[in-house]
Amino acid sequence: MRTWEANIRNVEPYVPGEQPKGADLIKLNTNENPYPPSPSVEKALKELDYDQFRKYPDPKASDLVHVLSEYYGVGNDEVFVGVGSDDVIAMAFMTFFNSELPILFPDVSYSFYKVWAELFGIPYKTPVLQEDFTIRKEDYYKANGGIIFSNPNAPTGVLLPLDEVEAIIAHNQNSVVIIDEAYIDFGGESAVKLTRKYENLLVVQTFSKSRSLAGMRIGYAIGHPDLIRSIHDVKYSYNSYTMNMPSLILGREAVKDDNYFKECLDKIIKTREEAKKRLKDLGFSFPDSKANFIFAAHKEIKAEDIYKALREAHIFVRYFNLPRLDNYLRITIGTEEEMKQLFDFLEAFLSN
Amino acid sequence: MRTWEANIRNVEPYVPGEQPKGADLIKLNTNENPYPPSPSVEKALKELDYDQFRKYPDPKASDLVHVLSEYYGVGNDEVFVGVGSDDVIAMAFMTFFNSELPILFPDVSYSFYKVWAELFGIPYKTPVLQEDFTIRKEDYYKANGGIIFSNPNAPTGVLLPLDEVEAIIAHNQNSVVIIDEAYIDFGGESAVKLTRKYENLLVVQTFSKSRSLAGMRIGYAIGHPDLIRSIHDVKYSYNSYTMNMPSLILGREAVKDDNYFKECLDKIIKTREEAKKRLKDLGFSFPDSKANFIFAAHKEIKAEDIYKALREAHIFVRYFNLPRLDNYLRITIGTEEEMKQLFDFLEAFLSN
Repeated sequence: MRTWEANIRNVEPYVPGEQPKGADLIKLNTNENPYPPSPSVEKALKELDYDQFRKYPDPKASDLVHVLSEYYGVGNDEVFVGVGSDDVIAMAFMTFFNSELPILFPDVSYSFYKVWAELFGIPYKTPVLQEDFTIRKEDYYKANGGIIFSNPNAPTGVLLPLDEVEAIIAHNQNSVVIIDEAYIDFGGESAVKLTRKYENLLVVQTFSKSRSLAGMRIGYAIGHPDLIRSIHDVKYSYNSYTMNMPSLILGREAVKDDNYFKECLDKIIKTREEAKKRLKDLGFSFPDSKANFIFAAHKEIKAEDIYKALREAHIFVRYFNLPRLDNYLRITIGTEEEMKQLFDFLEAFLSN
Repeated sequence: MRTWEANIRNVEPYVPGEQPKGADLIKLNTNENPYPPSPSVEKALKELDYDQFRKYPDPKASDLVHVLSEYYGVGNDEVFVGVGSDDVIAMAFMTFFNSELPILFPDVSYSFYKVWAELFGIPYKTPVLQEDFTIRKEDYYKANGGIIFSNPNAPTGVLLPLDEVEAIIAHNQNSVVIIDEAYIDFGGESAVKLTRKYENLLVVQTFSKSRSLAGMRIGYAIGHPDLIRSIHDVKYSYNSYTMNMPSLILGREAVKDDNYFKECLDKIIKTREEAKKRLKDLGFSFPDSKANFIFAAHKEIKAEDIYKALREAHIFVRYFNLPRLDNYLRITIGTEEEMKQLFDFLEAFLSN
């Protein structure tokens, strides 16, 4: 081994999900929104001042922070924005999880929590979800260096009711509790309203799912000004200018068009509820989802076989070859037409 | 103190440089390019497919990596891209600087090196630049956990000739050596050509200065495939999707238009050389700059007084209230017209 190699940080490299290319494929594998962002985003895109690209963007992301603080009825000093919720949560891990005690997150959850803990050398424990994929809140009533979980959870779509979320926070006033609400807009009740009650609570959301802007990389966190100040301090010590100019402007426009946002959400929720019926009729079972995906297992056919058959038909869903998850498919809710094609295929495939 | 506060990472918050707003001001304080990016960037901006914003960008940034690898005559596996060179260097610190031995960088250099070392808990030592602000290469001939310096250096503009850069690398085969070439295109000889000779060498550049795209946040590193693989592994463990869709497309177009790029560089270099003459005539002295700024001290008037007077006239330059630097102004090279206004003001101010 070359000497310098001994000092390279040792990580288990994360492999990002596949991004298949092509016009005729149906992409239901990464929980993107099937609808484009608001027309006001398109208008702002057309009006971007090309000459301004030579200048640094606003390091404080003030305009974007301000529309978010107005939207959620909090102060500008209660909002932090980053390059997708991954950037926000990674910064939060670096900022808040520096205890000798392990942080806690569910064994089945967003796979990046473990990756970040290992990257930053944070000890962690992963309480096991119950058989029905629900969180047992009492598992989080013990000394810890921090808590994080997704709500609704990924990749199950299961929502923990807000009173149980609050019970976990209330039992953990000594550490920072992060609720990752990437999918909350699809039918859950947000913990944002609890951030004024619990100053150790950080709620993280993203523009990548409900706001149709995965391509722009925008995430944010809401919490007590002391939490936000601390994460800002770390962020400014890492990279002062993370949000580029188009993301600041287009993100702002996306938040301002609330009618369009809610119309798209209504359509996705309606399509999801129809999909639940169709899946049931076809012999699938699944925990009830409040997200923009359904985590479904078939009573007879192995998930991996269905996944492969769908793939051959250019329909991409997500398959996790992991213990407890390997008989499920995570199916993103697409447009009505995309779901029709999915079900047409499944109907033919399963009746063979 | 609330219990959770004890586990917050303790950082000395970095304060980003001011971004004054207003149409009539002359901004020579953050080393931005005075010329807009290539017209082909504007064309690509107009052609961005708004519907694609709902999808995740390519996590591998393949197209952008490819145009850079072609431009520099290296392989795709020798290029890493990130959210500005700050992101690239921060990732490199996290990836490569994990020794018990201190890393080395000059006492006068890019102020972020110290900030990153402290953020990640990396021990460091800062050999003192010589009186004329040049690096004494022998100061780097000792055991270390890594080396980083800017070439040309910031905020001085002083270029270390490539044979001396190579001498430092050649004496340090046991640790990773990072050359931060943010300003190399303005008149220096790049160490990129040495990356095939020294597998422990990482060369970092940026789109923020010479390529007129500070607003897009694009930086990159070139080095041996083993270095690039390691930094990719850390990057994918941190955030798989850092580069947003517009940055990937517009960055690619900027690299492709090499004629425009070189025309802008020629103009800036010509303006810089004229500025040197004018500054000298006005009683300033400065180390010879090969960057897009000049670091100048006046023989009679204190830098802070000139800085404040310029500011009142809406002309912004950079002033560092730090030992060794506090009698200098860092003046970014603007357009000919902007420089004319600067010199008109200085001439009047200094003759009072």
